[in-house]
Amino acid sequence: MLAVLSGEKHPPDMHPIEQSAVVRYTDAAGLADALRDADALFVYDFLSTAVPGAWHGSNRLRWLHIASAGVDPVMFPALRESDVVLTNSRGVFDDSIAEYVLGTILAFAKDLPGSLRLQQRSTWQHRETERIGGRSALVVGTGPIGRSIARLLKAAGLRVSGAGRTPRDGDPDFGEVRPSTELGDYVGEFDYVVAVAPLTEQTKGLFDANAFAAMRESARFINVGRGELVVTGDLVDALREGRIAGAALDVFDTEPLPVESPLWTMDNVLVSPHMSGDVVGWRNALVEVFADNFWRWRAGQPLRNVVDKRLGYVPSTN
Amino acid sequence: MLAVLSGEKHPPDMHPIEQSAVVRYTDAAGLADALRDADALFVYDFLSTAVPGAWHGSNRLRWLHIASAGVDPVMFPALRESDVVLTNSRGVFDDSIAEYVLGTILAFAKDLPGSLRLQQRSTWQHRETERIGGRSALVVGTGPIGRSIARLLKAAGLRVSGAGRTPRDGDPDFGEVRPSTELGDYVGEFDYVVAVAPLTEQTKGLFDANAFAAMRESARFINVGRGELVVTGDLVDALREGRIAGAALDVFDTEPLPVESPLWTMDNVLVSPHMSGDVVGWRNALVEVFADNFWRWRAGQPLRNVVDKRLGYVPSTN
Repeated sequence: MLAVLSGEKHPPDMHPIEQSAVVRYTDAAGLADALRDADALFVYDFLSTAVPGAWHGSNRLRWLHIASAGVDPVMFPALRESDVVLTNSRGVFDDSIAEYVLGTILAFAKDLPGSLRLQQRSTWQHRETERIGGRSALVVGTGPIGRSIARLLKAAGLRVSGAGRTPRDGDPDFGEVRPSTELGDYVGEFDYVVAVAPLTEQTKGLFDANAFAAMRESARFINVGRGELVVTGDLVDALREGRIAGAALDVFDTEPLPVESPLWTMDNVLVSPHMSGDVVGWRNALVEVFADNFWRWRAGQPLRNVVDKRLGYVPSTN
Repeated sequence: MLAVLSGEKHPPDMHPIEQSAVVRYTDAAGLADALRDADALFVYDFLSTAVPGAWHGSNRLRWLHIASAGVDPVMFPALRESDVVLTNSRGVFDDSIAEYVLGTILAFAKDLPGSLRLQQRSTWQHRETERIGGRSALVVGTGPIGRSIARLLKAAGLRVSGAGRTPRDGDPDFGEVRPSTELGDYVGEFDYVVAVAPLTEQTKGLFDANAFAAMRESARFINVGRGELVVTGDLVDALREGRIAGAALDVFDTEPLPVESPLWTMDNVLVSPHMSGDVVGWRNALVEVFADNFWRWRAGQPLRNVVDKRLGYVPSTN
């Protein structure tokens, strides 16, 4: 029996799976009950925080798949300590998010928000813009999304370094990878700082007042990872006081971003609603990744994208 | 004697040249008088239309340099038929304009204008976006700016073709180059259509109702060339009636764009004020190109960027 935690909508393209297993769709309220007889759980509503509270109902669960790259919503102690195999949707969002990041970098460099504001007032006002070629970017997070970002930014002419858990040289995508724990030592070397690390105990609040103070005043900060990587109050202060030049934020510690957040109204901030990876067809792509694992599971084959529950992410083969 | 047609400001970095020649700065009103004794004219105010009307004053002029890539403001019959050598600022804007074009493509694909409008209303509204990888772009204009655009778009994952005066295969940047006179036959194959051709009798009004009718309804049109490449009324109609999906326009047949233009207020149009190539330092770069030619001219060496006055642009070596 497969339990599926749906959001407002059921996942698409489930018909073949429904032919091969008993599938029980549930919302958060029914999850504990649905888990009682479930062998597997597909967390399609990947932003739901309902799983820990319903976990007591699980009885025979052996596999949990989440329709996202970040697994932080299900990294609670009882799951970590269980034998339940956790898999994620690694790969679905890589290239879309990379394009999104490049789009925000170009928006800053070419002052596209300024052009749009002037257009709204039918005002012709020439400004000088910036090159992106030759500028430097630090990608904090060296998983597949970070790698795709690095490759695309390099193709567009930026110089790119990485920051991750394990410092190293000669990485195929990043060249040098710096230790993310020592961010303040080198973050000032970069024009753009991109946050795409998995949210773990080590990365929570990584971007705090110290990190922003160490950045260039001309630096732009881009977050396509998780809102909790950032101490939001410190970011707001840094932006207000001109300690950094701008931010493009697709993720927030509270989502939807509350209407009273000062981030909405800051001229040097681009807010988007957790959509950087969500290209047309993304929901089908997420079910495709799940289905691939489902058929492996039915056939007793090894699953793909197995999360290392101590690390909090799928270890890279690079 | 060197005459310099300045705009509001004199060009920077002219001191070395002032040490070596009599330099007379003039505005449009004084141009005919200044031309009387001038051996060379530097049109620094590159959008000025004053040169044809002042030409009768020229007496001993041998060289005219214009601080732009497009030479259409000085392509009047008397100059064409004279022995005056015409040079331009080829090369200064190539990579900046290419970045600008990629920025507008990403803005469309990721609906950045929509995000900014929603942000202004503090509204969280998830949308699905588009990939740019695998999409197709037609670059109309195969000079150095068009080539830089082609290279950058290809690096970012788009498939790129060119359109120009001379159809050919195996072009190093474009692969296939289609004949721009037959635009309607193939423009429907592309997701993005970029106008960057020089303005000549052959290209004036190239983008008319027929061309827009032949484009995909999902196509976006980007103009970083000259406003007169487009029949503006036809473009407005095509955008209003949904015959194309959007336009990013940096140049217009009248500049500044008049406040009553419907383009200002269309949601699917990005207006910018003829600035796509103007990165910080561009004025110095323009004078650098002029100065390089000035020293060649003083030394009796061949000039760079000599315009073929029959064609209306510097012939490509490719």
